Amino acid sequence: MSDILSKTIANIRPLDVKSMAAAKARQDTLTKPTGSLGRLEELSIRIAGMQGKSLPQIKQKAVIVMAADHGVAARGTSAYPQEVTAEMVLNFLHGGAGINVISRQVGARVVIVDMGVAKKLESNPELISRRIAAGTQDMSKGPAMTVAQATRSVEAGIEIVVTEIKKGLDIVATGDMGIGNTTASAAICAVVTGKTAAEVTGRGTGLDDQQLQQKIMIIDEAITLNKPDSSKPLEVLAKVGGFEIGGLAGVMLGAASHRVPIIIDGFISGAAALIAAGLCPQCKDYMIAGHCSVEPGHKIILQHLDLKPLLDLEMRLGEGTGATLAMSFAETSARILAEMATFAEAGVAEKEE
Amino acid sequence: MSDILSKTIANIRPLDVKSMAAAKARQDTLTKPTGSLGRLEELSIRIAGMQGKSLPQIKQKAVIVMAADHGVAARGTSAYPQEVTAEMVLNFLHGGAGINVISRQVGARVVIVDMGVAKKLESNPELISRRIAAGTQDMSKGPAMTVAQATRSVEAGIEIVVTEIKKGLDIVATGDMGIGNTTASAAICAVVTGKTAAEVTGRGTGLDDQQLQQKIMIIDEAITLNKPDSSKPLEVLAKVGGFEIGGLAGVMLGAASHRVPIIIDGFISGAAALIAAGLCPQCKDYMIAGHCSVEPGHKIILQHLDLKPLLDLEMRLGEGTGATLAMSFAETSARILAEMATFAEAGVAEKEE
Repeated sequence: MSDILSKTIANIRPLDVKSMAAAKARQDTLTKPTGSLGRLEELSIRIAGMQGKSLPQIKQKAVIVMAADHGVAARGTSAYPQEVTAEMVLNFLHGGAGINVISRQVGARVVIVDMGVAKKLESNPELISRRIAAGTQDMSKGPAMTVAQATRSVEAGIEIVVTEIKKGLDIVATGDMGIGNTTASAAICAVVTGKTAAEVTGRGTGLDDQQLQQKIMIIDEAITLNKPDSSKPLEVLAKVGGFEIGGLAGVMLGAASHRVPIIIDGFISGAAALIAAGLCPQCKDYMIAGHCSVEPGHKIILQHLDLKPLLDLEMRLGEGTGATLAMSFAETSARILAEMATFAEAGVAEKEE
Repeated sequence: MSDILSKTIANIRPLDVKSMAAAKARQDTLTKPTGSLGRLEELSIRIAGMQGKSLPQIKQKAVIVMAADHGVAARGTSAYPQEVTAEMVLNFLHGGAGINVISRQVGARVVIVDMGVAKKLESNPELISRRIAAGTQDMSKGPAMTVAQATRSVEAGIEIVVTEIKKGLDIVATGDMGIGNTTASAAICAVVTGKTAAEVTGRGTGLDDQQLQQKIMIIDEAITLNKPDSSKPLEVLAKVGGFEIGGLAGVMLGAASHRVPIIIDGFISGAAALIAAGLCPQCKDYMIAGHCSVEPGHKIILQHLDLKPLLDLEMRLGEGTGATLAMSFAETSARILAEMATFAEAGVAEKEE
């Protein structure tokens, strides 16, 4: 394991139980029946533990959207042509995509990263270029990338989130763009959770029944050919993963090592979370599941990681849209803890015993 | 039926199908796989139909929180003493309650109404006083109010929301405060949906098992004694309802008559929605279920009204907290429709057929 990766993992600490106890104690003094704000209360307490503050603060917010292409897309596993990856990156840069609108609504900045889009993009001050290669290799014919490339993709994610943390970052959401990346994510999900390809594979951007069967067959081929060892996360990433998936795993590890809460988006972010949690199980403590995607493998990933999603709005767009939508709840939960009056402050009578 | 009520009901029109078709057509041109924003897409289309605009707008937002007391609370159906209703109204006025924090987060104004709090509150420019009486009568001993009072409570709600609409209002959330009001809501729910008191009654602010059994028994007594006719919504409201419940039903009817979308909060707002929908079934088209409350009767109400909640965060605070939290999704859905680039605008390739 590389130096930056092992140092990052070594810095991921357990949640701060003192801050959590203080947050819990404060929740119970606020002017509401105990527990009546349900999961918002739980969320505020978890975030207190992550940030190590009894009154956590969520003000500076970002979604990191990583884009890359997938060699396996040549086999027709997506309903859209490969050039859409590059075209959507330009759409992100122009502010016209779903993630741009949702980010404006919740007040999050959008950090756009080229982790390995097939088409070379013109340089743009708003685009971070960390291209590992012009897309992965076709995983149904051999490994998607080398272990060295897998490691570099994770390191890039760590470096990018650390740069954002230096600018000021209280919470980060993860997002993705990459034609073919539900195929890679399904393969990772199958390998890590031990489920079959048929159980974890969905229609992505809109496959019909026959195309779905074809996609499952290709994933089976890739796993049979590459034989990834599920106990070696970087090997799994190299054999059946993608550059944006590695990058997002790095974002998660880097954020956790700086006590920054992470909101996980859908299936692709979930696959990245499996890699991050494989490299460092403690990292899970810093993950919040933003939503439950329509992709069937996403539920399986969330169960595997023991995460319960905040939202279930039947979304399957990716880009970090579900995570960023849920981000406002993290902010709300922290504000509730900080801003609600206590029974004593408000002069409200407490529960009769 | 009174003049204002019958005129309001006569003005509630079906959703505008032309605006809905235009919104649907536009959703399908935006740069995302068709349907991939799931319920946010549906929501934008429904709101287009409510507002009668192909590009609906959600900017000016309010939550109307109505407070009143309940005579039945004297029988110990709540875990909190009755004075908490008045104390919480003061907390609302000082900005220290859960609804204040959530409203600040989503940018909604909080409209606070005294519909009949037992303790007379000092006049305050921020408090709208529409007191029907100093709390209802104990419904386990006779009707909670007269039919004239029930009508006046609904009329007050209509007038209040119409005043807010004149100030500028694109969407309204409903909220409540009233010690004992889950008891009244459970009674309304049982009568209107035909379920038993045991099926629809929950722990409210935190009853233990024995107190819950007692609450169910009291609701059964009230229904047996008063024999409300489920086909007469104002009679149901009068016999087993509450002033804030009538007021919220009026808010819903008034908003629908002006094509303003309504976000329904939890169990008490749900009971009000049953009254409003009983008076005018068309009103249901203007209702959006903000969340699913922990109270067991709330699911039954949502099924009865054929509404699917946006959120399920295990909340049970009332005050409009769940509805106001969900309000940001209505705004986001409208912004997606208005602000996302189309495939043509962004130069993104469409799905391969």
